[in-house]
Amino acid sequence: AARELTEPLHYSDAADLLERLDAEDRAKLVEVLRADFEPEILTELDEGVRDEVIEALGFADLATAIAELDSDDAVWLVSQLDEDERARVMEALPSETRAIVAQGLSYPEYSAGRMMQRELVAVPAYWTVGETIDYLRAAHSVPDEFYDLYVVDPRHRPIGKIGLARLVRGRRPQRLREIMDDESLTVPVAADREEVAFLFRQQDLVSAPVVDGAGRLVGVITIDDVVDVIDEEAADDMLRLAGVPDTDLYRAVKDTVRSRIPWLLVNMCTALVASSVIGLFEHTLEQIVALAVLMPIVAGLGGNAGTQTLAVAVRGLATKELDFDNALQVIRKEVLVGMINGVVIACLIGPVAWAWFGQPTIGIVIGAALVFNLFIAGLMGSVIPLTLEKFGIDPAVASSIFLTMCTDSLGFFAFLGLATMFLL
Amino acid sequence: AARELTEPLHYSDAADLLERLDAEDRAKLVEVLRADFEPEILTELDEGVRDEVIEALGFADLATAIAELDSDDAVWLVSQLDEDERARVMEALPSETRAIVAQGLSYPEYSAGRMMQRELVAVPAYWTVGETIDYLRAAHSVPDEFYDLYVVDPRHRPIGKIGLARLVRGRRPQRLREIMDDESLTVPVAADREEVAFLFRQQDLVSAPVVDGAGRLVGVITIDDVVDVIDEEAADDMLRLAGVPDTDLYRAVKDTVRSRIPWLLVNMCTALVASSVIGLFEHTLEQIVALAVLMPIVAGLGGNAGTQTLAVAVRGLATKELDFDNALQVIRKEVLVGMINGVVIACLIGPVAWAWFGQPTIGIVIGAALVFNLFIAGLMGSVIPLTLEKFGIDPAVASSIFLTMCTDSLGFFAFLGLATMFLL
Ligand SMILES: [Mg+2]
Ligand SMILES: [Mg+2]
Ligand SMILES: [Mg+2]
Ligand SMILES: [Mg+2]
Ligand SMILES: [Mg+2]
Ligand SMILES: [Mg+2]
Ligand SMILES: [Mg+2]
Ligand SMILES: [Mg+2]
Ligand SMILES: [Mg+2]
Ligand SMILES: [Mg+2]
Ligand SMILES: [Mg+2]
Ligand SMILES: [Mg+2]
Ligand SMILES: [Mg+2]
Repeated sequence: AARELTEPLHYSDAADLLERLDAEDRAKLVEVLRADFEPEILTELDEGVRDEVIEALGFADLATAIAELDSDDAVWLVSQLDEDERARVMEALPSETRAIVAQGLSYPEYSAGRMMQRELVAVPAYWTVGETIDYLRAAHSVPDEFYDLYVVDPRHRPIGKIGLARLVRGRRPQRLREIMDDESLTVPVAADREEVAFLFRQQDLVSAPVVDGAGRLVGVITIDDVVDVIDEEAADDMLRLAGVPDTDLYRAVKDTVRSRIPWLLVNMCTALVASSVIGLFEHTLEQIVALAVLMPIVAGLGGNAGTQTLAVAVRGLATKELDFDNALQVIRKEVLVGMINGVVIACLIGPVAWAWFGQPTIGIVIGAALVFNLFIAGLMGSVIPLTLEKFGIDPAVASSIFLTMCTDSLGFFAFLGLATMFLL
Repeated sequence: AARELTEPLHYSDAADLLERLDAEDRAKLVEVLRADFEPEILTELDEGVRDEVIEALGFADLATAIAELDSDDAVWLVSQLDEDERARVMEALPSETRAIVAQGLSYPEYSAGRMMQRELVAVPAYWTVGETIDYLRAAHSVPDEFYDLYVVDPRHRPIGKIGLARLVRGRRPQRLREIMDDESLTVPVAADREEVAFLFRQQDLVSAPVVDGAGRLVGVITIDDVVDVIDEEAADDMLRLAGVPDTDLYRAVKDTVRSRIPWLLVNMCTALVASSVIGLFEHTLEQIVALAVLMPIVAGLGGNAGTQTLAVAVRGLATKELDFDNALQVIRKEVLVGMINGVVIACLIGPVAWAWFGQPTIGIVIGAALVFNLFIAGLMGSVIPLTLEKFGIDPAVASSIFLTMCTDSLGFFAFLGLATMFLL
């Protein structure tokens, strides 16, 4: 019955179903699916669940599934295994698949070489449209689905690209040379996957040829895999800004704690820095308790204004709209925006503080501290991610820690320092 | 010279170039490009820059550009104009384009109807592969690029889909009925664009047919436009979590201030709530200044742990991995993770506070407050976005305000309340 239910499911939906079940039912469902297990299911599962399903499948059935996958998915799946599992699976693979997977694994993680599939259609420029269509009809080695043909020279270097629509609409005697697009770009195997995603997005591509160091065509990257990269990279930026290294919705409590605690520990240290700044002014606080009441306003607004700038800058760096050419312009703008926002907020909070504590000076002090802290927020919110990028560090990972350390510590320092000067 | 330089540029690169120039050079470049202006440039420009370029182009050239665009891009571009500009452009459009644009505008924003292009290939099931290829060669109304053919019944309802690769590989006398994929899905015109993106991602689609209320094929959505939606939606979630309504890297200072200040004002109010909570304990703070020094640690760690949970939940809702079926499970896990993290942090901060202020009880009080606040962080970090989703409010927009209000206020309350009970 479960078999009938899952039969018409797309592999992604089957994967989602496996993710939702508890361990026991999951193992049962694997048994039901085993007879004709769709290997693509494995490419759609979250890490923890995937490990369980792989264990339930066993090495023989896992090897069969990997051999059926497109080469890009096969390489990826093997790359996700532990070292000893990997060795055992490689042994169980048919020799042809094993060679392809071994080659794929030799490219660096997150490179074009890891994203590409080897299954592609390459044809010589002197063929006619008719010959090409006949070849496609007859050939066994043509992938089930493809969108573009690559025209190669005798050394197998791509010299043009022909969309299937253009091929179909060509006249049979036309040479491919006449109808090919010879301005299309190639992706080096070593290119970073974020660069690849940028290119696809920028040029509205559906596929792109990948070339090795000698310029020879070795694979093709398809849009569906680029969509996954775009999705993952965007999610990573958001999660990292929030201090989560990976999506962990389905991860066990123990592993989730382990992945999230480092961020909280760093945060604890920066909070201690802020506390020490306050500690410098214990004497002032003893005399004016109102300051302790108002402190969170200065720190909170600084942190939030800075986070606004930070998110815009991290996104700008990811889409290449922000780089070192226009960095100064952006910093200048963010500083200005911060100060204007600071003035607006100061004009509102100042009178409130005055009314609350019956002292006009306390309103002026918190107002000045806010303008200063939102200036810092605009400055650091843009300078920190740019600096990290300069040093090759992912600006999404570390920015917000540095930022809140600056806005907390400097905010408290300005507020309590001004109070010490003008209120004591 | 500028012309020669920009000539071989892809339209996306030309758009990026226009974005980077200052207003004066931008107007000059528009003059250079005017003679054969690539209309796709307009679809790649950021809002502010686009307005300037459109103004520089003038209504006549703008109308010409719009008429050249694919219908989806034409509709989108017109939708971005002010009402009076829109009326003038519509008048200047050729009547056929005007009708298509008017129809497109009748669909709700962010719907499949707005994303689809009308240019597509629809063929009857009784045609043979040969007839179809001959038709594609001869027909004038076939789009330049397409990846799939749609097989329709006599009422123009889609009954199947044929990838071009399959068509090319078919034998000429084969009927389309025999080779079409009849399990492919259709998208209703009214579908939300996030649903569409989910479908493309889930099923690795390159195009999908759009049907009206009567089930008739009215358009096709292509992957390149879905990529833009995925990109925008992910960026929106990140920016909104950080309190920025839109990317505004190229926006003028005045407009940036106006778009960011509402968030800061709301934040000001929630900060005032936190301040009032502290205000309740003025008497306690007067006697133990150490509490004011340690307050930011309790609030800061609560806010950060909550943000971790929040980001995971918002991402989970966006990818449909989190929904009301597994909500309880996720909340339970997040609460547990929060409490465990709270205990870890408490064990580290407690002794520090003790050593710093020479009072063991102060270590115990801050430790207990941290465990409580990280429990609140896990609970509210997951419950708030789920509740907003339940009420149809975008969980990315409003979550983090509610969250920090909870962690700040309840954190201060717990810390100062416990201190009042055990330290006075
Ligand atoms: Mg899934
Ligand atoms: Mg998944
Ligand atoms: Mg695009
Ligand atoms: Mg693939
Ligand atoms: Mg894939
Ligand atoms: Mg990244
Ligand atoms: Mg651009
Ligand atoms: Mg842009
Ligand atoms: Mg939406
Ligand atoms: Mg996919
Ligand atoms: Mg389009
Ligand atoms: Mg487009
Ligand atoms: Mg959304």
